[in-house]
Amino acid sequence: MNTLGTAIMTLSEAAARHSEPGPGVTRVLGSAEHRALLVDLRRWMQEAGLSVELDAAGNLVGRTPTVEGARTLIIGSHQDSVRQGGKYDGMLGILLPLVVLQHLHQQGKTLAVNVELVAFSDEEGARFSSTLVGSSALAGTFDPALLEATDANGITMAEALRELGANPEGIAELARTPDQVCGYLEVHIEQGPVLESLGLPVGVVTAITGIERHAVSLIGKAGHAGTTPMTLRRDAMVAATQVVQAVDHHCRHTEDLVGVVGELVVTPNAVNVIPSRVDLTIELRSPFTEIRLAARKALFGDIAQRLASSGCELRHRLTYQQSEVRCADTLQQQLSRAIEQAGYKSHRLFSGAGHDGLAMAHLTDVGMLFVRCKDGLSHHPDESITVEDAEATAQVLTHYLLNLEA
Amino acid sequence: MNTLGTAIMTLSEAAARHSEPGPGVTRVLGSAEHRALLVDLRRWMQEAGLSVELDAAGNLVGRTPTVEGARTLIIGSHQDSVRQGGKYDGMLGILLPLVVLQHLHQQGKTLAVNVELVAFSDEEGARFSSTLVGSSALAGTFDPALLEATDANGITMAEALRELGANPEGIAELARTPDQVCGYLEVHIEQGPVLESLGLPVGVVTAITGIERHAVSLIGKAGHAGTTPMTLRRDAMVAATQVVQAVDHHCRHTEDLVGVVGELVVTPNAVNVIPSRVDLTIELRSPFTEIRLAARKALFGDIAQRLASSGCELRHRLTYQQSEVRCADTLQQQLSRAIEQAGYKSHRLFSGAGHDGLAMAHLTDVGMLFVRCKDGLSHHPDESITVEDAEATAQVLTHYLLNLEA
Repeated sequence: MNTLGTAIMTLSEAAARHSEPGPGVTRVLGSAEHRALLVDLRRWMQEAGLSVELDAAGNLVGRTPTVEGARTLIIGSHQDSVRQGGKYDGMLGILLPLVVLQHLHQQGKTLAVNVELVAFSDEEGARFSSTLVGSSALAGTFDPALLEATDANGITMAEALRELGANPEGIAELARTPDQVCGYLEVHIEQGPVLESLGLPVGVVTAITGIERHAVSLIGKAGHAGTTPMTLRRDAMVAATQVVQAVDHHCRHTEDLVGVVGELVVTPNAVNVIPSRVDLTIELRSPFTEIRLAARKALFGDIAQRLASSGCELRHRLTYQQSEVRCADTLQQQLSRAIEQAGYKSHRLFSGAGHDGLAMAHLTDVGMLFVRCKDGLSHHPDESITVEDAEATAQVLTHYLLNLEA
Repeated sequence: MNTLGTAIMTLSEAAARHSEPGPGVTRVLGSAEHRALLVDLRRWMQEAGLSVELDAAGNLVGRTPTVEGARTLIIGSHQDSVRQGGKYDGMLGILLPLVVLQHLHQQGKTLAVNVELVAFSDEEGARFSSTLVGSSALAGTFDPALLEATDANGITMAEALRELGANPEGIAELARTPDQVCGYLEVHIEQGPVLESLGLPVGVVTAITGIERHAVSLIGKAGHAGTTPMTLRRDAMVAATQVVQAVDHHCRHTEDLVGVVGELVVTPNAVNVIPSRVDLTIELRSPFTEIRLAARKALFGDIAQRLASSGCELRHRLTYQQSEVRCADTLQQQLSRAIEQAGYKSHRLFSGAGHDGLAMAHLTDVGMLFVRCKDGLSHHPDESITVEDAEATAQVLTHYLLNLEA
């Protein structure tokens, strides 16, 4: 059977063809691939009974027939990709609801609320190093200075949006007001291995994680690796191992906390010279601010202790910090109910990655469904979901929409 | 007083001016700076009563008046430097003996042996990535294929030698035979902090260290740093910390062994991606082959154990191996005696760095004197010795030369 799932997979394949040469999918804001996708997407939305408009931020918005006096549920995700990404990160959150809305339309079902299906123009920010462009426009938090940001060829974001047929001067007017909107819902591939490890097709997101990043430097002393006795060394690389292990240790022993040392650069990085300096990054993520802040304190205390006898100096500064966004309890409950109605166990999990919901939370309640991800692999050409899981999630979304009351 | 020391420091300053623009001294084989230095060096050697010849390998050789029937002691070091190196690495081993020979000449003292003072053309190999050019020519181990090696501008070593006034076709004929030579002596800045930590101006070298190098890769699995639970990670950087700490641990707990992880590169090296791969180098040095080989075995056994539960794969291969060269007992004893005659405590230490003696050991007995080095700093613009230590070492060398018997 899997009628809806098959339709979702077919559209996903079709959308993925609008990409720069592979491997994987590369489709950035305002590119020829973006323009070509919009042509297909407009047609698909129209076939689903939606009235379609390209807005000033380059978002393609499809609206169900107006229910007078009802508020609007915004459902959306982003059409853009990272470079050499997969077929589902973003696009699944547009095409899966699209197929569901088309199915309801064909069956002559009407909903108690207005629905806007939004294909956000840019969330990943691969072209202009900006993120959440489309969703921040709707949330009213778009920074107009971003329009002057340039890509590698000196083209501004404003020019890229005009190329797409959008009129960036109108972005400020896109902001919705909270009383117009009853919530924001996003379907997204999990990008992690939790649902796979539990054997579940779909799950309810509790929060979009909070993130902090630190730039850390360890300053030791260079020296000839043959002539400096071990006892007289101040080896910055040896000191750095303590930082890496401390991060790993604290994250393994603290629930709802993950962290990594992802970047590490050694100076002078020569086979026969004692490292004089190591620069590294620490990233901590938690859906609970209090856990993240307590972990930061404990971590840097532990690091100081571990380095006490290293002879190396530690320098660090916080370079980025973003609090978590909690998904609304009401939405979580409604989504859980829909999952159970569709015949699955409802599991709640947090999102370790950022999403358009970070921006939309400024406007309205946010809810998210995660779809099982093969091997937890995302931002990668091999990113993959099954037709069965697409079908299951489509059934869940159908239940959710039909349950909605005005 | 420090008459000899002052002369040595003055000549060192004069020689250091023959350098590419600083910081530090940069003087590579066959450069304009090399040519200009040879003019000064020839004059200084002549003033010391030596007959001077530029040989086919670009070595400048100064000979004491021939003692009929006596064998020859070769004293030497190299005129070239690393890029942005110091004033003493190499040059001290030419200028200090030169001042001593000049002093003996002025005093009308004659020696029981012939002395050849050799300014080797190239030891560091900064221009052609070759080492020990000058000394291997005398030892008869020079590889003629090296003459075709090219620098960054495509100039061959043969062309560079001709530019200097040398005729590289004659290099094969430079090889001495063991019966002509009674030993090789080199004076060198320690390049480490041992003598400084002991408060001694000069020491006797027991051996030039053996070296081995390994290329090590740790293969883990990349993953989104926000969405992958800690328990499902295969973080290559966390695994790499075990390798770094194992090297440090074994070297700290094994006498006459030093080692370092000097190079380390993380892939993909992004703040929010779990490292999938780390490539690093391990270098081990010991003046005793048996210690080095036993340490290698213990180290890789320990590493395998430490990585057992990491989920990461270890790959490694030996990329370089050179056995130690032991300094001749006779020369060590003679140098110790000379140090005591000059009024100092004789301390023996091994050289953790390579020297021209590595080549000369193929020809004859090798002896080395180390001169105290400020902060153990070498291959650096701030490399420094004191006039008092230059004087002390000159006194030691004077005693040594006058003690020699035919």
